[in-house]
Amino acid sequence: MGSFDFLILAPVGSIFALGFAFYLAMSVLKQDQGTDRMKEIAAAVRVGAQAYLKRQYLGVSIFFAAVFCILLALAWKGYLVIFVPFAFLTGGFFSGLSGFIGMTIATQASNRTAAAAMKSLNSGLRVAFSSGAVMGLTVVGLGLLDLSVWYYFLNWYYGAHPAAIPANMDKIAAITSTMLCFGMGASSQALFARVGGGIFTKAADVGADLVGKVEAGIPEDDPRNPAVIADNVGDNVGDVAGMGADLYESYCGSIVATSALGVAAGLGVAGVTVPMVMAAIGVLASVVGTFFVQSKEDASQSVLLAALRKGVFTSSFIVAIASYFLIKHTLGAEHMGVYWAVISGLVAGVLIGLITEYYTSSGFKPTQTIADSAVTGPATVIISGLAVGMMSTAWPVIIVCASIMISFFVSGGAANFNSGLYGIAISAVGMLSTLGITLATDAYGPVADNAGGNAEMSHLPPEVRKRTDALDSLGNTTAATGKGFAIGSAALTALALIAAYRDEILIKSDKLIEMSLMNPQVLIGLFIGGMLPFLFCSMTMRAVGRAAGKIVVEVRRQFKEIVGLMEGKAKPDYASVVTIATAAAQKEMVLPALLAVIAPIVVGIFIGVEGVGGLLCGSLVTGFVLAVMMANSGGAWDNAKKFIEEGHHGGKGSPAHKAAVVGDTVGDPFKDTSGPSLNILIKLMSMVSIVFAAFIIGNTFLK
Amino acid sequence: MGSFDFLILAPVGSIFALGFAFYLAMSVLKQDQGTDRMKEIAAAVRVGAQAYLKRQYLGVSIFFAAVFCILLALAWKGYLVIFVPFAFLTGGFFSGLSGFIGMTIATQASNRTAAAAMKSLNSGLRVAFSSGAVMGLTVVGLGLLDLSVWYYFLNWYYGAHPAAIPANMDKIAAITSTMLCFGMGASSQALFARVGGGIFTKAADVGADLVGKVEAGIPEDDPRNPAVIADNVGDNVGDVAGMGADLYESYCGSIVATSALGVAAGLGVAGVTVPMVMAAIGVLASVVGTFFVQSKEDASQSVLLAALRKGVFTSSFIVAIASYFLIKHTLGAEHMGVYWAVISGLVAGVLIGLITEYYTSSGFKPTQTIADSAVTGPATVIISGLAVGMMSTAWPVIIVCASIMISFFVSGGAANFNSGLYGIAISAVGMLSTLGITLATDAYGPVADNAGGNAEMSHLPPEVRKRTDALDSLGNTTAATGKGFAIGSAALTALALIAAYRDEILIKSDKLIEMSLMNPQVLIGLFIGGMLPFLFCSMTMRAVGRAAGKIVVEVRRQFKEIVGLMEGKAKPDYASVVTIATAAAQKEMVLPALLAVIAPIVVGIFIGVEGVGGLLCGSLVTGFVLAVMMANSGGAWDNAKKFIEEGHHGGKGSPAHKAAVVGDTVGDPFKDTSGPSLNILIKLMSMVSIVFAAFIIGNTFLK
Repeated sequence: MGSFDFLILAPVGSIFALGFAFYLAMSVLKQDQGTDRMKEIAAAVRVGAQAYLKRQYLGVSIFFAAVFCILLALAWKGYLVIFVPFAFLTGGFFSGLSGFIGMTIATQASNRTAAAAMKSLNSGLRVAFSSGAVMGLTVVGLGLLDLSVWYYFLNWYYGAHPAAIPANMDKIAAITSTMLCFGMGASSQALFARVGGGIFTKAADVGADLVGKVEAGIPEDDPRNPAVIADNVGDNVGDVAGMGADLYESYCGSIVATSALGVAAGLGVAGVTVPMVMAAIGVLASVVGTFFVQSKEDASQSVLLAALRKGVFTSSFIVAIASYFLIKHTLGAEHMGVYWAVISGLVAGVLIGLITEYYTSSGFKPTQTIADSAVTGPATVIISGLAVGMMSTAWPVIIVCASIMISFFVSGGAANFNSGLYGIAISAVGMLSTLGITLATDAYGPVADNAGGNAEMSHLPPEVRKRTDALDSLGNTTAATGKGFAIGSAALTALALIAAYRDEILIKSDKLIEMSLMNPQVLIGLFIGGMLPFLFCSMTMRAVGRAAGKIVVEVRRQFKEIVGLMEGKAKPDYASVVTIATAAAQKEMVLPALLAVIAPIVVGIFIGVEGVGGLLCGSLVTGFVLAVMMANSGGAWDNAKKFIEEGHHGGKGSPAHKAAVVGDTVGDPFKDTSGPSLNILIKLMSMVSIVFAAFIIGNTFLK
Repeated sequence: MGSFDFLILAPVGSIFALGFAFYLAMSVLKQDQGTDRMKEIAAAVRVGAQAYLKRQYLGVSIFFAAVFCILLALAWKGYLVIFVPFAFLTGGFFSGLSGFIGMTIATQASNRTAAAAMKSLNSGLRVAFSSGAVMGLTVVGLGLLDLSVWYYFLNWYYGAHPAAIPANMDKIAAITSTMLCFGMGASSQALFARVGGGIFTKAADVGADLVGKVEAGIPEDDPRNPAVIADNVGDNVGDVAGMGADLYESYCGSIVATSALGVAAGLGVAGVTVPMVMAAIGVLASVVGTFFVQSKEDASQSVLLAALRKGVFTSSFIVAIASYFLIKHTLGAEHMGVYWAVISGLVAGVLIGLITEYYTSSGFKPTQTIADSAVTGPATVIISGLAVGMMSTAWPVIIVCASIMISFFVSGGAANFNSGLYGIAISAVGMLSTLGITLATDAYGPVADNAGGNAEMSHLPPEVRKRTDALDSLGNTTAATGKGFAIGSAALTALALIAAYRDEILIKSDKLIEMSLMNPQVLIGLFIGGMLPFLFCSMTMRAVGRAAGKIVVEVRRQFKEIVGLMEGKAKPDYASVVTIATAAAQKEMVLPALLAVIAPIVVGIFIGVEGVGGLLCGSLVTGFVLAVMMANSGGAWDNAKKFIEEGHHGGKGSPAHKAAVVGDTVGDPFKDTSGPSLNILIKLMSMVSIVFAAFIIGNTFLK
């Protein structure tokens, strides 16, 4: 270790990220807001989105209050350190705040992007991307802030009160063990945001399409459709706020899990310093990367994509260089294997993104095959889309496996098992270190999408809509790669969390659970865990169906009852649709979320701590594969439809197009509700298992 | 052990099963064949089916010859006992023979069932069910024959040549270790039968529907459709021959795995006697059960179902009673826990059947919800059907887990781990013991289906078609429960095989592999294994799509080129469609089948024997859940369509019906190609791992 305390870079990085996010936000807000009509529409979306989040946070607060009390009770009974309930709260608070800030700026940026697109494509890109970067940097900034504050506080507290350090732990173990638990707050918040937002957005989307496009025959984003504002609100609450909370959770989760495993590997404070400081380096790298995102006028989609990629690759390159020196100076030359683990994570993230692009972009064969199959009707579209999604799981799995294998062995796992686990965990940190910019490319999508809607509803000239369409189409690809990235990092993070769970059991009960697949408890847990993602997807897909049904009824009512609506003489009641979608999403998100929290506890009580280990691994494997499949099927269907709309197989309005629309509609809950929630499901279950570990040990029937 | 050698009951039961099957076959063949038109149609189906199987067996022979040579080489190198290559051949031969005999009688029974249905519903039921029973009893009879012959031969051989017994084994271990390997032959044959037949049947079905129903607007089973004979052929080669080979494999696999685990549990010859004799008892019980299947005229579907159930329940009851005495006399009173393991298997089989019925029968809410969602179009039909299928995985998983847990602990797993594994294995034998009759209820379905097709094409009076429809509709339910049963038993059997694999590694390398989930090799295997069923389904679904495309082209050509076809003045060329479907199925089945054989060997070489353990568990978990989901989604879609055809939501020809047809078409490859092949995939991979265990140990990079 060097004489310089690198750890101070974590709070510095945090402040820097938040400061730069603030600067970017101000520059976005300074942009031209466009015509009054544009402002009006943006305001309607903003009001709807904020109303949704307000309601959502209210509902979630009740959950948080209840769990806080339960955790307090557990702490009182001695099952937990007293700081855990509070860490649970801050984790949840900052995760929610990340989503809120990201969404606020996104709803401000949509009309500004449309206005900028009136000037040029590059201006539009800059505004949309900047607002995405605000979100990306806010997430990493708040994450580092929360982690730093807790670290310094606990470090001071346990330093001042050594008696407070639990038995069979040293100071750093006590710190990481507490911080590990705070992930549960972030995960819970993220799950609610993803599931609730996902249900909202897809119910509104499906509802708007079913009545508007199919029954009334009016185009997408037509202002006469009462569900059109709700549809735009949904993009913000689901794809922006949900995504922000989700990745906040991945980001912090990977860092705290790595820290905890660092202690088990005997790396002490240095084991904590590396992931925290690497995250700080990632902040700087991301900020530098944003400056490389520039485009020329009338660029093709591949040029636009290249512009975004340039930013991401530059950031990755900086992290790759800087972390070499970081690891050399903190862990020492004998631990340089850890550096290669980081690189393997970085590379795996990039590769998964490329694979996702191959399977979901209309430039490649898989999506084109789906478009081809549209000629023989909706059934073949569905079959080929599912087949593409299933096929697309192979490479991501192999890449993640390779990353696990490499990280484990280069970090010295063959000689010291815990070092190997530390390597796996830090590869996830490596993958997520550039989150500031990868998330920016992802969050940019919904902004461009909303800008398109804004342009359509404001009757802007066709060339503007063409520009926003180019931006939006790119957004579909980045959204798909972003999801692949989220899933890949989640798999590695969850794995680290499972390893941390095992350590937690060891600390709390002095029992090293073997988790052998021949142990029937583990095996049963594995089976149940393998089934849960299916059950969860079933619940969330049905929820979308039910919520969409309610919206259909309301839209039909308005078409029928509001005189002059179809002629454009009267305005629809946008707010009532938003209210209905909000209420439905809030109601429907409860059961799937509870499933995640309750399953590990119930399994733990009835099948023991080994059963929980099996449960976590089972849901990790199935959840990972299912999440990739659902995200990619959904993305491929969406782009197959767009491919036909570009004029292939008869173009818009042809039978092939109608068949492709069916695929797109099926894909909606796949890619925006069920699929992306699975990451969080997996991690939340791991977090719950860790937090409730001592409780389960004390209360299980199967010791 | 008693003084009487119970084991002799195994060959006796085998002869009895085959004798009774022969008697039933003769009685079916004696039935009235109906009009000349009926005979002609049945002959066309029969010829097509036999042509398919001939071609199939030719292709499979090449595979068997190649693998036989590889196994001979392995035996020569000392990796295998010399009998294994030959056991591989007999397993494959008898598995194929089971399918062939079952299919031959099924194709003879279809017109006879239609003719009998001209008299009464009960006559139709008796003929169709008897032909199903021929298949059921042939499968169990040949299975027991193969097992008995090998057992007695090896027992004599190792008795006469004790020097031939491999080191660190006693005689019984040498016998069971050899017999275990013969499952690979049966599994390979079964996989080809299921995949090839499944591709054939669904390609013909989808192809016939796409051009006939959708484009030409002629009804199902219309003789003017050139693909209609191929569609009927498909029911026989996929649902009968494929199913027979599949369950032959499950049946023998569960018995040999149990025998091998019995040796590990220290039960010696008695450990082999119990599963073999229990199977023999099951034969007797099944024969008795067949006499209880009777119906009154104009019975409702629930009455018909009750008639079939009475037969199954009677057989189960007999097994439950008789196996009590068997276990008491062979294993002794101290092992009565094993009896309860058997009962848990029997009960689990029945429960999974009931759950499957709930999720797939139009009498219950899940399928009705799908029918309801048809009102809002095909997209919602797909979403709700997938959601029902995913939801339906929960209970079967919990039931199988409960069965594992109970079997393990009642058999004394807590004190002696291997005894617990023996308990799990024997619960699968319990579940499968009544296969003679459960398979009869299953194989009856395609016969009734074909009888309906025969009645339609022969223009029989409407009341006959109504009766065959009643029989067919029941067949859909029994097919679904049969699939649930096949999947449930496969899960337990595969588990037993994985345990046997571990023993095999222990025997061959003196290394007890821990298979801990924290071992990265195991974990990577788990990930890859979890992904493989998705990849496999993707391959098989795409294969159906491609093969169906070829049939569409041919049917369109005939409609265009054959003058007077649509007016009924000219006949279509049925045979050319059969030839095309055959060629396509043969080509397409190769890759998915190779995946199953090669994956464990490649994983073993690169990731080691622990990796293979993880691979098997991963594919078991995902494969099980996915198989249940696909079978149940498919069944529910099919019945939702039928529910609408009965007059709900606008009935036949309504928009809701059109939407439901999309669901049904998507469900076709789900429930008849990809889903049911997954069982075999799982078991074949386990078998390959066992047979190649020694080779992998000697050649892996990761020792």
